[in-house]
Amino acid sequence: MTSIPLDTLNKTSTADFVAALGDIFEHSPWVAEAAAAKRPFASLASLHEAMRAAVLSAAPDQQAALIKAHPDLAGKAARSGTLTADSTAEQASVGLDRLSDEEYAAFHQRNDAYKAKFGIPFIVCVRRHTKGSILREFERRLGHDAAAERATALDEIFRIAALRLDQRVETAERLKLDGRLSTHVLDTRAGRPAPGVTVELWELDSGGHGRLLVKTVTNKDGRTDQALIGGRPVPIGVYELRFFIGDYFRAQGAGRGAELADPPFLDVVPLRFSVAEAEGHYHVPLVCSPWGYSTYRGS
Amino acid sequence: MTSIPLDTLNKTSTADFVAALGDIFEHSPWVAEAAAAKRPFASLASLHEAMRAAVLSAAPDQQAALIKAHPDLAGKAARSGTLTADSTAEQASVGLDRLSDEEYAAFHQRNDAYKAKFGIPFIVCVRRHTKGSILREFERRLGHDAAAERATALDEIFRIAALRLDQRVETAERLKLDGRLSTHVLDTRAGRPAPGVTVELWELDSGGHGRLLVKTVTNKDGRTDQALIGGRPVPIGVYELRFFIGDYFRAQGAGRGAELADPPFLDVVPLRFSVAEAEGHYHVPLVCSPWGYSTYRGS
Amino acid sequence: MTSIPLDTLNKTSTADFVAALGDIFEHSPWVAEAAAAKRPFASLASLHEAMRAAVLSAAPDQQAALIKAHPDLAGKAARSGTLTADSTAEQASVGLDRLSDEEYAAFHQRNDAYKAKFGIPFIVCVRRHTKGSILREFERRLGHDAAAERATALDEIFRIAALRLDQRVETAERLKLDGRLSTHVLDTRAGRPAPGVTVELWELDSGGHGRLLVKTVTNKDGRTDQALIGGRPVPIGVYELRFFIGDYFRAQGAGRGAELADPPFLDVVPLRFSVAEAEGHYHVPLVCSPWGYSTYRGS
Amino acid sequence: MTSIPLDTLNKTSTADFVAALGDIFEHSPWVAEAAAAKRPFASLASLHEAMRAAVLSAAPDQQAALIKAHPDLAGKAARSGTLTADSTAEQASVGLDRLSDEEYAAFHQRNDAYKAKFGIPFIVCVRRHTKGSILREFERRLGHDAAAERATALDEIFRIAALRLDQRVETAERLKLDGRLSTHVLDTRAGRPAPGVTVELWELDSGGHGRLLVKTVTNKDGRTDQALIGGRPVPIGVYELRFFIGDYFRAQGAGRGAELADPPFLDVVPLRFSVAEAEGHYHVPLVCSPWGYSTYRGS
Repeated sequence: MTSIPLDTLNKTSTADFVAALGDIFEHSPWVAEAAAAKRPFASLASLHEAMRAAVLSAAPDQQAALIKAHPDLAGKAARSGTLTADSTAEQASVGLDRLSDEEYAAFHQRNDAYKAKFGIPFIVCVRRHTKGSILREFERRLGHDAAAERATALDEIFRIAALRLDQRVETAERLKLDGRLSTHVLDTRAGRPAPGVTVELWELDSGGHGRLLVKTVTNKDGRTDQALIGGRPVPIGVYELRFFIGDYFRAQGAGRGAELADPPFLDVVPLRFSVAEAEGHYHVPLVCSPWGYSTYRGS
Repeated sequence: MTSIPLDTLNKTSTADFVAALGDIFEHSPWVAEAAAAKRPFASLASLHEAMRAAVLSAAPDQQAALIKAHPDLAGKAARSGTLTADSTAEQASVGLDRLSDEEYAAFHQRNDAYKAKFGIPFIVCVRRHTKGSILREFERRLGHDAAAERATALDEIFRIAALRLDQRVETAERLKLDGRLSTHVLDTRAGRPAPGVTVELWELDSGGHGRLLVKTVTNKDGRTDQALIGGRPVPIGVYELRFFIGDYFRAQGAGRGAELADPPFLDVVPLRFSVAEAEGHYHVPLVCSPWGYSTYRGS
Repeated sequence: MTSIPLDTLNKTSTADFVAALGDIFEHSPWVAEAAAAKRPFASLASLHEAMRAAVLSAAPDQQAALIKAHPDLAGKAARSGTLTADSTAEQASVGLDRLSDEEYAAFHQRNDAYKAKFGIPFIVCVRRHTKGSILREFERRLGHDAAAERATALDEIFRIAALRLDQRVETAERLKLDGRLSTHVLDTRAGRPAPGVTVELWELDSGGHGRLLVKTVTNKDGRTDQALIGGRPVPIGVYELRFFIGDYFRAQGAGRGAELADPPFLDVVPLRFSVAEAEGHYHVPLVCSPWGYSTYRGS
Repeated sequence: MTSIPLDTLNKTSTADFVAALGDIFEHSPWVAEAAAAKRPFASLASLHEAMRAAVLSAAPDQQAALIKAHPDLAGKAARSGTLTADSTAEQASVGLDRLSDEEYAAFHQRNDAYKAKFGIPFIVCVRRHTKGSILREFERRLGHDAAAERATALDEIFRIAALRLDQRVETAERLKLDGRLSTHVLDTRAGRPAPGVTVELWELDSGGHGRLLVKTVTNKDGRTDQALIGGRPVPIGVYELRFFIGDYFRAQGAGRGAELADPPFLDVVPLRFSVAEAEGHYHVPLVCSPWGYSTYRGS
C-alpha cells in the first residue's frame, strides 16, 4: 500500500480522505469520516488523536460494532483467507498464520473462553507481541470485568490504528511507536570493542524452543551496523542473544598469561532476557574476557 | 565390589593380592603380580606408581597385548554385554551404553578409522569425558603418529587404573583424581547471598541438546549443600547452569526503585561454559540483580 | 590481664569471682556480685546474660550510677590518664587518645551538648566504631528522648561488658562478637586466582584522609592468609582497599591480544565501602582484567 | 588570537600568510614561508603536512636551530614571562606556571640532565600531558641516543604545530587531535540509567593528591551533558572519577529486599585509571547497585 503525504490528506476531498484511511479502523470508515471534518492536522499525532476522539465519543452501540468488526486471532477467518489486508499482515508478523495444530488449539480454546465471558472477539495489537505474550495476555485479561475489558479492547484498537497510520501516512515526525533492541561487545582482555563477533538473536517460546531472528557480526566498534530490532515495536517476549566469543578470542591469539583452555571456558555465551515494554530501548551489552563476563540492561 | 584396606593388601598373599587387583589393568593380572613383589606400599600413590612402572618396563609385545586387551568404545562388546564389570560401569557412566543409532554410527566410524591407522583399539579414560569430548579426542589423536599414540594410550590406561584403584582400595589419602564444579548466587540488590534459588546443571551435546544432571536449591549462604559435581573427575564437556532468579526476586518482593518488569527482564539465567581439566576446580558464581549479572571462573 | 577459665570462675569464692570480674562493668563490682550467686554458668553467654539481668533488675538509681560511672569519651580523664585500664585500652583502640586539637574540640562540644540534654556521659562501645562513626552516633542519639537514650546507654554498656568478658574468660565457645573483613582477587584474563597482589586496607576519615591498617600480599588462592580484620568486631566506618594490580599484570607478562597500556589503564584499584554492622562478614572481592573490574559485597 | 579561514590563507599574499602562521613553529617563520609556496591546500591536514615536509627537508643546522628556539619547560623564561604567547598558554594548560618549589626543582634538575646529554632543550607537546607524565617522559627519553631523541623532538614539534594550527585556522574538517573522556551511570537495581548522580573528575599526581577538574551531574540518560574532557587531547596521566551513588540511591528510596545499610555500603565510588593515548576515547562507565559495581574501558 502506498504512503500518502499528510499535506495531501489535509487538502483532499472527504471522499478521498475516507478512501485513503477508511480501513485504519477495521471495517469502520465512519471513524475516518468523523476525523475528516477536523482537518487540517498539523501532525500525525493530531490525526490519530482526532480518530481516537471520534471513537470515544461514539455511541456505545457503535463502539461495540467496531470491536466486533475485528477478526478472531488465529481464527477461522485467518485460515480461510478472508481477513482485511492489514489484519493478514499483522497476524502473519507474529506467526499466527503458521501455528502448529497444538498452538491453534490453544488459541482456539482461549478465543472461545474469552468470547463466552465477554461476548466480543479478543483484540490485541499483535505487532507488539509474540505468540507467548499473546497467550499470557489472554490469561491476564480473562480476569478483567466487562467494563475494564471493553476499555482495554479500545486501547488495543487505538494502538493498531497508530501503527497502521504510521505506515500509511508520510510525515516529518512519526508517531513514537518504535522500540529498539541493540547490543555491544567489549573485550576486557584487550580493553577495546570486540569486532567480528558473530551474534545471533533468538526468540524463545515457552517450551524453550528458539526461532532465529537475526544473525550478524559486530563491526569495529563492537556494535552491529543496525539495531537488532528497530524502527518498530520490540515484540513482548523472551529472547536469547548468543555471542560466539570462543571463535573471537581464538582468532585474537593468546600469549603469556592469556591462554585459552581447550575447549575454551566460554565459547557461545547466551544472554536470555525478556522484553516487557514494546516501545522500550533494550541495550544488552556483553562485557567479557575469555574467563568471565557481565551484562545488564543498558541504554 | 567391596573396598579393601591398603594394609590388608600389604599383608596378604600374592595370590590374594592378584585376586583383588588383577583386573585393575584390563585382562592383565600380570601387572598386579609384578606390583605385589614391591610391597609394602605406604600409600595408594606408591601402589599406582609401582603398577605403572611394571607396565612401562614390560616388553613392547606385552604392552601391546595390554592395549589390545581393551574393548572398543561403544563397540559390539558393549552391545552384547561381554565387557568386564569395570568397563561396563565406565562406559555406562558417560552414556555409551545408550547411544542413538546416529551416535553409534559416529563412534563406529571413528573406531574403524582409528584401528585402520594404528592397529589398536581407541582407549580413553571415559570417566573424565562426555560423549562429545570423546569424539573430539578421536579427531585430535587421529593426527598423532604411532609412537605418540601408543604413549597416549598407556597414559589413558594409567588414568583408568588410578580411578579403579581409588574406588577399590581403602586408604587415608586418596589419589588426587577429583575435580569439582560448584556455584554461588549473590544478590547485589540486597547485598547478601541469595537463598532458595532453584539451580539446574545441564550437560549439553554438540547439537545444543541438554541432559539434566542436577536440580537443587541454594541454601542460606547462596551455595548448594553439596558441590554440583565432586568426589570424582568433572567430565570434559560443555555445561549450562540455569538459575531461576525471576522466581527468587519475585518472592523477595519489590519496593520503590526496585520494581520488576512483567515479565521480569531476567527470569532463567543460563551460564554456559566448558570444562577442559577434569581434575580442575570450577567455581562458577552468579552475581546478580534483577537487571544485570556477571559470572567468571572463580576458585 | 590474664585469662581465667570459666570452670575456675564457677568454683571460686564469691570474693575471688568479684575480684576477677568486678571491673567488667565500669566501677560497679555489684554487678559481678549479683551474678556470682547465679553460678555455675554453662557458657560465657549465660554469664553475660546473668550480669545483664542484674543490671536490668537493679533500681533506677543504681542503673543511673552505673551509667554515670563511665568516663567521657576523649575527655579530660583520658588526657589526664585516670581511666580504668579497660577504658584506656578501649579508647586507644579507636585513636581517641591521639586526637588532633580540632578533633578533640569536636568531641568536647558533642560531649557537652549530650550531657546538657541527658545529664549522663555519652557511652558507646568504642571497639565497634571509628572516630567518624562515633561522631555520627552523637548526632543520631542526640535526637532521642531521655528514656530511649537511657536504654541505648545500657545496651552499649552490655556490649562493652561482652567484649571485656570475651577477652577475660577462657571458654570453649566464645561470644559471637566477631566480624570479618576479607578479600579475594580473581584474574579474568587468565581465569584463575591472582597470587602475589599487594593489597592495602585503609580506614578513611570524613575528610577522606586515610590510615593504613593492613598491608599484605595475596597467596596462591588469591586470598590473604588471614582475614584483613577478624577475631573482633569490624569497626563501623569507611574503608578503602587498594589493589596493586598494575604490578601484578606487568609481572604476568602480556602477549597477543593482551598488551598493557603504558601507563596501564588500571594500576592501583581502590574499592571504597562502609561497614555498618560491626559483627557482619564483609567479603569484598576484586574480579579483574587489565581493563575492567567488578566488586560486590560477597559472603 | 582570531581564527582565519583556510580559504583566506590560500588566497592571501605570502607576507600575510607568514604573518598569520609564522609562529606556528616557535620563532621560525621560515617554515610558514616554505609552506606558502605550496598553496592552495585542500585541507588543514595538507597544510600541516607541507609545514612538516619543509622542516624535514631543511638542513640539519636549520632543524637544530628550530629545536633550540624552544624554551625550557617550566624554565626561567616561563618564570620571567618572556615566552611566546602560545608557549605561555601551553605551559599554563598543564600547570607548569604554578609549580611548587619542589616540583620546580624536579623539572630544573631533569632539564639540566637532558641538556647535558643532548645539548638541546627538552621539547614535549604539553597539551597531551600532565606534570607527572612529563616527568616520566624525561626518564624515558633520557635513555634514547642522540639521533633517536632528535627525531622525537621533531615529532613533538609537529604535534605542537598541529594543535596550534587546529586552533588558528577555520576549516570544515579539523585535524584529528581530540581525545575524549566520558562516563555513564547505569543502575542495575532499577534497570535504567541513573540520573542526578554527582560525578567528579580528579587528576591525581604521583603522590596521590588530586586536583578537581570537573564536577557535574548525570542527566536523564545517566550521562553527562558534555564529555568530561573533549575537543582536545586527554592529557596522559592518572585520573579518578568519583560517583556519589550513596546520595543517589538514598534519594530513590528503598523497599522490601532493597534496603540500604546505614552508612550505605557504597557511598562515594572512586574509579581510578590512567590515560596513555591522548587522542584515545576513554569511556569509563559505572554499572552499579547499592551493593556492587563494575567498570571497564568502554567505547
